[in-house]
Amino acid sequence: MLNLDFHPSGRHFLQIPGPSPVPDRILRAMSLPTIDHRGPEFGALGRQVLADIRKVFKTRHPVVIYPSSGTGAWEAALVNTLSPGDRVLMVETGHFASLWARMAAKLGLETDILAWQGADEHFPQAPNWRRGVPADLVEQRLRDDRERRIRAVCVVHNETSTGVTSDIAAVRRAIDAAGHPALLMVDTISGLASADYRHDEWGVDVTVSGSQKGLMLPPGMGFNALSPRALEASKTATLPRSFWGWDEIVAMNADGYWPYTPNTNLLYGLHESLDMLLGEGLDQVFARHARWGEGVRAAVRAWGLAIQCADPAVYSPVLTGVITPPGVDADALRRLIHERFDLSLGTGLGKVKGRMFRIGHLGDCNDLTLLATLAGCEMGFKLAGVRLAGSGVQAAMDHFAARPSPAALAQAA
Amino acid sequence: MLNLDFHPSGRHFLQIPGPSPVPDRILRAMSLPTIDHRGPEFGALGRQVLADIRKVFKTRHPVVIYPSSGTGAWEAALVNTLSPGDRVLMVETGHFASLWARMAAKLGLETDILAWQGADEHFPQAPNWRRGVPADLVEQRLRDDRERRIRAVCVVHNETSTGVTSDIAAVRRAIDAAGHPALLMVDTISGLASADYRHDEWGVDVTVSGSQKGLMLPPGMGFNALSPRALEASKTATLPRSFWGWDEIVAMNADGYWPYTPNTNLLYGLHESLDMLLGEGLDQVFARHARWGEGVRAAVRAWGLAIQCADPAVYSPVLTGVITPPGVDADALRRLIHERFDLSLGTGLGKVKGRMFRIGHLGDCNDLTLLATLAGCEMGFKLAGVRLAGSGVQAAMDHFAARPSPAALAQAA
Amino acid sequence: MLNLDFHPSGRHFLQIPGPSPVPDRILRAMSLPTIDHRGPEFGALGRQVLADIRKVFKTRHPVVIYPSSGTGAWEAALVNTLSPGDRVLMVETGHFASLWARMAAKLGLETDILAWQGADEHFPQAPNWRRGVPADLVEQRLRDDRERRIRAVCVVHNETSTGVTSDIAAVRRAIDAAGHPALLMVDTISGLASADYRHDEWGVDVTVSGSQKGLMLPPGMGFNALSPRALEASKTATLPRSFWGWDEIVAMNADGYWPYTPNTNLLYGLHESLDMLLGEGLDQVFARHARWGEGVRAAVRAWGLAIQCADPAVYSPVLTGVITPPGVDADALRRLIHERFDLSLGTGLGKVKGRMFRIGHLGDCNDLTLLATLAGCEMGFKLAGVRLAGSGVQAAMDHFAARPSPAALAQAA
Amino acid sequence: MLNLDFHPSGRHFLQIPGPSPVPDRILRAMSLPTIDHRGPEFGALGRQVLADIRKVFKTRHPVVIYPSSGTGAWEAALVNTLSPGDRVLMVETGHFASLWARMAAKLGLETDILAWQGADEHFPQAPNWRRGVPADLVEQRLRDDRERRIRAVCVVHNETSTGVTSDIAAVRRAIDAAGHPALLMVDTISGLASADYRHDEWGVDVTVSGSQKGLMLPPGMGFNALSPRALEASKTATLPRSFWGWDEIVAMNADGYWPYTPNTNLLYGLHESLDMLLGEGLDQVFARHARWGEGVRAAVRAWGLAIQCADPAVYSPVLTGVITPPGVDADALRRLIHERFDLSLGTGLGKVKGRMFRIGHLGDCNDLTLLATLAGCEMGFKLAGVRLAGSGVQAAMDHFAARPSPAALAQAA
Repeated sequence: MLNLDFHPSGRHFLQIPGPSPVPDRILRAMSLPTIDHRGPEFGALGRQVLADIRKVFKTRHPVVIYPSSGTGAWEAALVNTLSPGDRVLMVETGHFASLWARMAAKLGLETDILAWQGADEHFPQAPNWRRGVPADLVEQRLRDDRERRIRAVCVVHNETSTGVTSDIAAVRRAIDAAGHPALLMVDTISGLASADYRHDEWGVDVTVSGSQKGLMLPPGMGFNALSPRALEASKTATLPRSFWGWDEIVAMNADGYWPYTPNTNLLYGLHESLDMLLGEGLDQVFARHARWGEGVRAAVRAWGLAIQCADPAVYSPVLTGVITPPGVDADALRRLIHERFDLSLGTGLGKVKGRMFRIGHLGDCNDLTLLATLAGCEMGFKLAGVRLAGSGVQAAMDHFAARPSPAALAQAA
Repeated sequence: MLNLDFHPSGRHFLQIPGPSPVPDRILRAMSLPTIDHRGPEFGALGRQVLADIRKVFKTRHPVVIYPSSGTGAWEAALVNTLSPGDRVLMVETGHFASLWARMAAKLGLETDILAWQGADEHFPQAPNWRRGVPADLVEQRLRDDRERRIRAVCVVHNETSTGVTSDIAAVRRAIDAAGHPALLMVDTISGLASADYRHDEWGVDVTVSGSQKGLMLPPGMGFNALSPRALEASKTATLPRSFWGWDEIVAMNADGYWPYTPNTNLLYGLHESLDMLLGEGLDQVFARHARWGEGVRAAVRAWGLAIQCADPAVYSPVLTGVITPPGVDADALRRLIHERFDLSLGTGLGKVKGRMFRIGHLGDCNDLTLLATLAGCEMGFKLAGVRLAGSGVQAAMDHFAARPSPAALAQAA
Repeated sequence: MLNLDFHPSGRHFLQIPGPSPVPDRILRAMSLPTIDHRGPEFGALGRQVLADIRKVFKTRHPVVIYPSSGTGAWEAALVNTLSPGDRVLMVETGHFASLWARMAAKLGLETDILAWQGADEHFPQAPNWRRGVPADLVEQRLRDDRERRIRAVCVVHNETSTGVTSDIAAVRRAIDAAGHPALLMVDTISGLASADYRHDEWGVDVTVSGSQKGLMLPPGMGFNALSPRALEASKTATLPRSFWGWDEIVAMNADGYWPYTPNTNLLYGLHESLDMLLGEGLDQVFARHARWGEGVRAAVRAWGLAIQCADPAVYSPVLTGVITPPGVDADALRRLIHERFDLSLGTGLGKVKGRMFRIGHLGDCNDLTLLATLAGCEMGFKLAGVRLAGSGVQAAMDHFAARPSPAALAQAA
Repeated sequence: MLNLDFHPSGRHFLQIPGPSPVPDRILRAMSLPTIDHRGPEFGALGRQVLADIRKVFKTRHPVVIYPSSGTGAWEAALVNTLSPGDRVLMVETGHFASLWARMAAKLGLETDILAWQGADEHFPQAPNWRRGVPADLVEQRLRDDRERRIRAVCVVHNETSTGVTSDIAAVRRAIDAAGHPALLMVDTISGLASADYRHDEWGVDVTVSGSQKGLMLPPGMGFNALSPRALEASKTATLPRSFWGWDEIVAMNADGYWPYTPNTNLLYGLHESLDMLLGEGLDQVFARHARWGEGVRAAVRAWGLAIQCADPAVYSPVLTGVITPPGVDADALRRLIHERFDLSLGTGLGKVKGRMFRIGHLGDCNDLTLLATLAGCEMGFKLAGVRLAGSGVQAAMDHFAARPSPAALAQAA
């Protein structure tokens, strides 16, 4: 039987920015026997999760659940609303924004890539990978689009490759200020259920997400939250689509079913996840992540290292990008830490490969998990011969000790 | 927590032709903690399952695994090899063949649908739904295609909606006899790992399959087994594709990884499934299913009812379609059986809705499971006021008692 | 990893009269991580299960839970209430009653064994193994005990070795009619949560039970339900005891804790079991078992075989003892059935070894499980060359089809 | 369903000296369906675990496995070998040694309690709770026992309440030097499979252990490893016994079965545990624990606090007792740490209640788990207003970083 026992003792610390650690309750729920996806018990399950998932996206409109990765949900957003040759404005805030743009191009869309330009001390080759979406530039670009050829603006809410979030409401305001009819599509694959997100209030047309981050599920489930405008657009969009087509799914979802076989056991997990998240309360969930982010950043500062996100207003509550000192290969460091301390950290992707690593602080974690993670990093730096300015673990301990977690406060109350 | 307890006692009998019952070992394996899909342990897992899955398809060429349903794998087969407006010859042998054709049309392909015509006592509206692919008609149609506009022939190996298999090697011979360059694409979603299947030997270009049938996994995984010709075709095919693109997946699979997040926990299950199937031996697996099919058909005959498959040469070892007597609503019967006996049977789909039901006899079953299933049907008929010619349970008991199962023989040896 | 794969496909049918099949929900609950048995979450768990278990025993008094088998709970009942050389009246109704008596003797008690005598066609050597406790003989024996040397009357409520129950209320009345001060101790290891049982109303002093039968848990947990008189007796009883001592356990249980480490994960399972049983309703649970028993006995009668229980008034709803025809080795038959059909049946024990087998119909079963079981038996008889009078499967199908299960009725309502 | 969610996010840190964290593999193995404890598959399982468990005790003689806690195994050791009124020499090295002595008294044995006397700075009331068994005093006491009334010497190998081990071989030498026939009984409930232990080589007659420590299982299983002399003694010992009786168990174990229902699902776990421990290699397991102990003690020293074990030669590799500064209530501190950081630590027991707490470093841990634990302690001290001399976390990081774990070394090799 599968053992996965490279390290023979103890639990692996999975502190990448997703897949995040899956709670024990969810793993057990997922292991219940598969049922008939056409039977009455399935319908009850389907209706429940479809109703509850809307609360997480904060929408009154349909949320489509795909048996796919988040990447699939990206594709679904594009092929349901756009036609061959349509122009989309993609804002490059990091690696995943780039990949989404690359996907759009592959699908036959014309991509207009917008990237903030400016000086940056650490990553002069990618200054835009340290900041959020520049709403003013979006507005300008849309104003310049006199012919209204741009059909959609695509942005990433929480860049998994950088640890930078973006102000989605500001992007909406920018589009409106420009009086532009483009749809607003947002990837919050790694933001959902960890950082506050408001599909309806922020006027998003398609929100894309996945299961393996804040929802604390294994990978295998993609989401599209829709707006009435997006649904309207899908009626005329002509990119070929079948598997991703919203129409049949939305129609059958009304009764809790799917047009093709959904991934039943992950839906069991989703049911459990929603029960946990809504039971805890989304505001408390967000506060929990925010507090963790602060603690981890306190550690990075104590180490004397730079945080990839250069704008404190948009620090991610989900992950922190840590820039390694010049000459220190971040991936060699990660491998050493994995080998010695059974801790997985996120690699630097694309333009920043080898120059940074990412600490995930999302989902089924707690203060001690994160302190262990920081200790693993700190020992790894030491073993790699990197001199740190101070102890990040100590800084994080000071931080966490000074501020009770939302759960501890709730329990004490 | 999720309870799924419409029936408060006992285990549900899931005897639809997929999703099939998932073995306890697999459910446990799937509940192990999710790991980093970029880490070394994942690579080892990936390489193992990618090597072993080829043995099940009987191919030396790549098998692509998608985090999707089998429907997604249908789409993948088409978009990787074809271009807008390409003509495909789809042979309608049942509901799923029709759905695949409908998908092809949605994706912008021209579909040429071939259906056997002839008299049929029970289903005059769908005589072709009781027989396999007519290889001679395929050959004729290809010969008639002087301009070689047909780019692919798409057939279903085991029609899940009917309980009829098709002779894939004969289709290959028909294509060759016609000297036609069309690709041969085969759906063996419900046939793989239950009925013998030989991707290389039979000259199939793309084989499509899914996880939730003979592989005994929950739904959520789709497969494309490729041929060198299919890979070659993918280089020039122009249907838009990104998520489904073979190129990047095949390239990264060489090291056991995927270009985007694969569904890790289902891969744990696949690892376990392959260990079980290859440990038992594919020939024994096929013999087991064949013997079950014979027993179930003995029961249907004893009841005095018609088996949907009209050609004994192509009885499915995976499922049996049972035609209900005139005036008996098969779905009302199924609901009654579900409510009274906690047994799920497959519904009649499309053209035969309400006129038949399907008994799945695949995967993690045994003689007693099937006898229980037949008993549930027999009691249901009685409660529905249907007079049967005789006892199907008795016939199946006679059948099973007279022939030791492959496992019992192996154990006795 | 552990595979337990003598039969490579399908689920084993565990139709012995305990351990009974464990529901999937319970198996998952048991696999949650072990917690600190001195921490606050454990206390909450402990208080919950200790309160709910009383409802199952129908008592307002303490129920002691041991990390032991039911055999341990037998010993606990004796050593807490009796002193060396004390006389106990044990009524031999079967193998387990004999074993309990043997245990009493080993512990230094004087055992007075009462067994009904009378002619019996099938088991002349053990006529008492086919009938319940003869309350009139108990009364007579107690009246004869002028010196009141008998300190306890020990009876078995549901004899797991025979499929015969006893009328506990009648035993209580017999003791009272004799005006005898003996304690009444009852083993309902295999009866609890399947057959109606009323610790307080029936005036039982110590009730002994275990986890692996009607509670649908794996083995490993023993129970003593107490009466005030039993607690009083424990203050002066002098048999050596420490592990089994009620005093410390009852004292610490008040807060939900135990004096030594309890078996935490089985307590998780018990929590789930109690949630299931009380959720279904005990009356419905009893009706479910009674109906199953009737169906199985209908099958035995149709086979033309004798049911071990000779008195229809005390048929067990938990199991049925089937007497094999002269010359048919019941154990050889059981082995054949296990090998061919992956079905476990109970062996004949002690005085009836080789002459009968036992069909368990308890816990997490349903109609189809039992029909499968009967089919396995029927095929086994055939393979063993035994001519049966008729089809038991048919008789049971007739029975079950004619009477909706309590669950089906509840669902329909 | 059971949630155990006082802390809604993250995994609990169970760092008490047992129950220890149970590995995911074991939890899954334990959740497999219960099988017939009289069937052939069970026999295979039984024979396997009974053979492998001997390797862990390092004995060629029988090891008896009880469905009970370790406390039950204490009782079993006494009642199988001794007779009412027999004298036993119990060496008080801590709370559990005291409890064992109390049990002996309850069972009607005469207990002769030996405790090292001497000055102690921290625990003048219990100087013996900071040191191992004084073999010289044992020898003297046995020499003084001219009438050879002492029938057994009982010592604890690893005192779970103190973090002190004892030199068992030295105790054996002391008995031999005194030429005394007493049996040597050793409790290694918390030492087995974490600290080196050699039943045969050290001449132990009965070794007592339990499942929930180094074997990494949930509680519910007790062990007695026997010597030929112990078996011989059991033939004449007259303490009443039935459940604990070795004779029947040893006889039936020969075929892999038990005289009464064993706790099947814990045996699944034991099978997995033995596979893991023997796969890793016992020497590596011991080295792993030793290294952890050193790291934790480095932390305690850095804090400027006293380790309960006053003799560095007998530091426990399993747990460390930390003496809190005068005026600091150790239990209030533990509660605060539990509430704030979801970390369970061991309480001070008996004579040292409130004056110390215990850190478990055993079983399924790793460096990061322990660093997280130390961080939780360190933050707790801070919140409780305790000034520490320095950072224990830092000291432990230095320690662990400087010394690769046995597993990391093996992986690198």
